[in-house]
Amino acid sequence: MFLYTKNFEEQKERAMEGLRKALAEDKVDYDIIPLLEKINALDNYFTTSSCSGRISVMEMPHFGDKVNSVWLGKWHREVTVEEVLEAIGKHRSGQLWFLVRSPIIHVAAKTLEDAVKLLNLAVGLGFKYSNIKSVSHKKLLVEIRSTERMDVPLGENEELWVSEEYIGKIVNLANAQVRRFKGKLKRLEEEIEKL
Amino acid sequence: MFLYTKNFEEQKERAMEGLRKALAEDKVDYDIIPLLEKINALDNYFTTSSCSGRISVMEMPHFGDKVNSVWLGKWHREVTVEEVLEAIGKHRSGQLWFLVRSPIIHVAAKTLEDAVKLLNLAVGLGFKYSNIKSVSHKKLLVEIRSTERMDVPLGENEELWVSEEYIGKIVNLANAQVRRFKGKLKRLEEEIEKL
Repeated sequence: MFLYTKNFEEQKERAMEGLRKALAEDKVDYDIIPLLEKINALDNYFTTSSCSGRISVMEMPHFGDKVNSVWLGKWHREVTVEEVLEAIGKHRSGQLWFLVRSPIIHVAAKTLEDAVKLLNLAVGLGFKYSNIKSVSHKKLLVEIRSTERMDVPLGENEELWVSEEYIGKIVNLANAQVRRFKGKLKRLEEEIEKL
Repeated sequence: MFLYTKNFEEQKERAMEGLRKALAEDKVDYDIIPLLEKINALDNYFTTSSCSGRISVMEMPHFGDKVNSVWLGKWHREVTVEEVLEAIGKHRSGQLWFLVRSPIIHVAAKTLEDAVKLLNLAVGLGFKYSNIKSVSHKKLLVEIRSTERMDVPLGENEELWVSEEYIGKIVNLANAQVRRFKGKLKRLEEEIEKL
């Protein structure tokens, strides 16, 4: 038996303290705040971390080495080709990648039933990669996540493998993905109170 | 209260019948069969679907439209540049993508404790995107999944946006990802009996 239900109130209090601090330090993605507030207003849920989705240009020693990765550019919105080219211009060494990541919201639920209700709502609204991420005595954690994603290698060790024209193409595709997941976030914000 | 524990034996029997049929029809990825057999030999688990991971070239009307997507090439192993170029040569219309997908194994567990034990084992062995995918009266479903992935736009409507040299670069990166996730599958196969 896991004790997450028993520990729910105490964990929620802690998480809300952390969120207030993050908000005060301007560390929360601006356009996701109303959604977080709506989730946290529900008795049986609280948010523990979130990202509103992003386009980024990243330099990494090798794929998947997050620790030594450096963001050369990161945007929680649509981007222009110029912005991406400017970020690419900062590349010095390692692998250079153009990335799109869907929004991710981690939400603790009070009971398994609560978790499944949220999970099914999110999947139904297009967040198809949503899941229960972890279960422990402290928390039963739902991850709300969508399918939009791009992982495009751009070059390595100062050598660029693609043309400016290609960057234009992938920026268009990435912006379409951003519009798509922002729309899903909006719908989730509208529907979340029904839980 | 979900009834998955109560329905476990009946569901396992059905799933095993489906697996025997899929094996007879040669529909199961060859190199993942020993792992599936080891999981299904455990009393409190059974597999419901699986993919051993793949590299593919896909044509789709627009990103995410799985229904109308067509595989021009699909390999559950490392590939050569020639194989990928041959697949690209079959492109006619829509968006053309080069994709890498990590292995995915769906495993039903008898209790939440069983699910979490498997989830934590998988995460610890490098399958960091593993999760509890769904919970219903029928099944409590764990998804074993890793982080390797590539989504590279190659062109659209017969127009190729990248050079052959670039294809060579992304094939190298993709093959490295395949080696990495095959290694993880091997370790999972070795460790799974400890559950």
